[in-house]
Amino acid sequence: MKKYLVTGFTGFVSRHFLEFLESNCINAIVKGIDVCTPDINESHFKYIKISFEKMNLLNKESVENVIREFQPDYILHLASYSSVAYSWKEPIFSFQNNTNIFLNLLEAVRNFYPSTRILSIGSSEEYGNVEEKDLPLIEDHILKPVSPYAVARVSQELLSKIYVNGYGLDIVITRSFNHIGPYQKDIFVISSMIKQLVEINKNKSRGEIIAGDLRIVRDFTDVRDVVSAYYTLLNDGESGDIYNVCSGKGISLREIIDKICDYFDIDIDIKLDPNLIRPDDNRIIIGSNKKIYIKHGWKPEYSLEKSLKDMINYWQSQNTSVA
Amino acid sequence: MKKYLVTGFTGFVSRHFLEFLESNCINAIVKGIDVCTPDINESHFKYIKISFEKMNLLNKESVENVIREFQPDYILHLASYSSVAYSWKEPIFSFQNNTNIFLNLLEAVRNFYPSTRILSIGSSEEYGNVEEKDLPLIEDHILKPVSPYAVARVSQELLSKIYVNGYGLDIVITRSFNHIGPYQKDIFVISSMIKQLVEINKNKSRGEIIAGDLRIVRDFTDVRDVVSAYYTLLNDGESGDIYNVCSGKGISLREIIDKICDYFDIDIDIKLDPNLIRPDDNRIIIGSNKKIYIKHGWKPEYSLEKSLKDMINYWQSQNTSVA
Repeated sequence: MKKYLVTGFTGFVSRHFLEFLESNCINAIVKGIDVCTPDINESHFKYIKISFEKMNLLNKESVENVIREFQPDYILHLASYSSVAYSWKEPIFSFQNNTNIFLNLLEAVRNFYPSTRILSIGSSEEYGNVEEKDLPLIEDHILKPVSPYAVARVSQELLSKIYVNGYGLDIVITRSFNHIGPYQKDIFVISSMIKQLVEINKNKSRGEIIAGDLRIVRDFTDVRDVVSAYYTLLNDGESGDIYNVCSGKGISLREIIDKICDYFDIDIDIKLDPNLIRPDDNRIIIGSNKKIYIKHGWKPEYSLEKSLKDMINYWQSQNTSVA
Repeated sequence: MKKYLVTGFTGFVSRHFLEFLESNCINAIVKGIDVCTPDINESHFKYIKISFEKMNLLNKESVENVIREFQPDYILHLASYSSVAYSWKEPIFSFQNNTNIFLNLLEAVRNFYPSTRILSIGSSEEYGNVEEKDLPLIEDHILKPVSPYAVARVSQELLSKIYVNGYGLDIVITRSFNHIGPYQKDIFVISSMIKQLVEINKNKSRGEIIAGDLRIVRDFTDVRDVVSAYYTLLNDGESGDIYNVCSGKGISLREIIDKICDYFDIDIDIKLDPNLIRPDDNRIIIGSNKKIYIKHGWKPEYSLEKSLKDMINYWQSQNTSVA
């Protein structure tokens, strides 16, 4: 039975990764680590055996201990402070909790269990400001990061390359585009908008939602497709290779809002929050998923409509309250 | 009178920067910071007023305090663990003491004295493995770092760009190629070789020196030219711009050894130390200094022969002993 170490264990991607293993009847031993304590019902899982350790990846000794003791076959490294906006406010914290935590992990693996295969999760933000003629972005496109978060992710990717080529570690690298799905926290834009719209619909009032620049276009992939890509890459990805994980399609935030309003049959007003406008933001990002499809047969299965519907159901099942 | 904050104050570049100010009769207030205590005779200086504070740039609060209290017009950021070989042994330490210290400095400046002008020192190592057709390297050449040290320097450069474009800080960026000159420590290759050859010559024996791959070609600039470039860039460089600081000429380590042996009229044996061979090293690196010359009129003044002669004199004046 393969052993998976999953960092960022309390996040919604981790949650869906566990569901993926379980629903595909994949026997596995999973150890989760995180700075927070997860809310998981272990009896729900039949095929996977789960344990958890609370730890901060900035603590080098803790990371070394877990690698030495657990000896994972695979590390799914999901831990990250992935908010671009937050990285502008707290660049040191963002950098440490993306790049430095990853470097601690790499060193622990190099020193204590170098046969581990690591999936290093990167971000579409690494591409930076791109021209429309370069869309959809392929993996060979030049990286011009334009936020502290994006720099942290580029640094992570460059370190991955060094550890593969210089030390012989086994690391597969992604550049993951925006993902959406049930359980996503409302600090992320689509989840936040849906949460607000669910509330408005509940009250059957003409409501107002608070948003940033709604013209920006992003490439959204359902988190359930994302975790299936991660499983594919952990198993079949080539060490040192970089893969976009994306839908290949772009949609503006405005269009997504319209879709949800149509679904509810409500009208809304939109209030622009200047705090949600970021310096030097990318207007449009769309990725190409040809490489992972051609090399490993992965393609997204969930339609945008299905993702939005499931997110609406999720927020309706919560006791939402927009203060 | 302008105020200069110099990090990495005990290093040989800092020492030559002080000499540059003094010998050019530039009145200045200089505050040095370093983890080590400097060995400086302040009465030697008439034009510059020097103070020193022992501090670790990894300590965020210390960095904040020094920026808030000293309010420098210029920061010459020389602090670095710049050994590629060491970075392969201790990648975390190298990364923290290049990238994280720089990020702490940037944040302190952003929060407490954003009008400061910073000179961010980068490295030719950022270019990584290059093809001969691309030599001499110009600043627009793609960066493909191949060591932990090089990644740390690329990260530093990317952060500089973010702080210029996103936060409006005033940062000029270098990619400095190898430098040589008196006072350079013998952990650096040319200084190490000269120290060994001076010893062999003293004993008038046929000696043996220990070296790595002597076929590698580097672009060496005299440290006195380097500090004049730094002064030029601090005063005239364009914020956000990147400048190679280099001689524009390449020479192999073997040729340098031959020059020194000719000078002493000695024969030597060379013993290859496999520990000095680095994984994935660049065979040949030569930079173009056209940009800094055309934009700001800087060009190197010291010949290689003059640099080597002065380094020989330096090591002869020391009580050398090769154990």
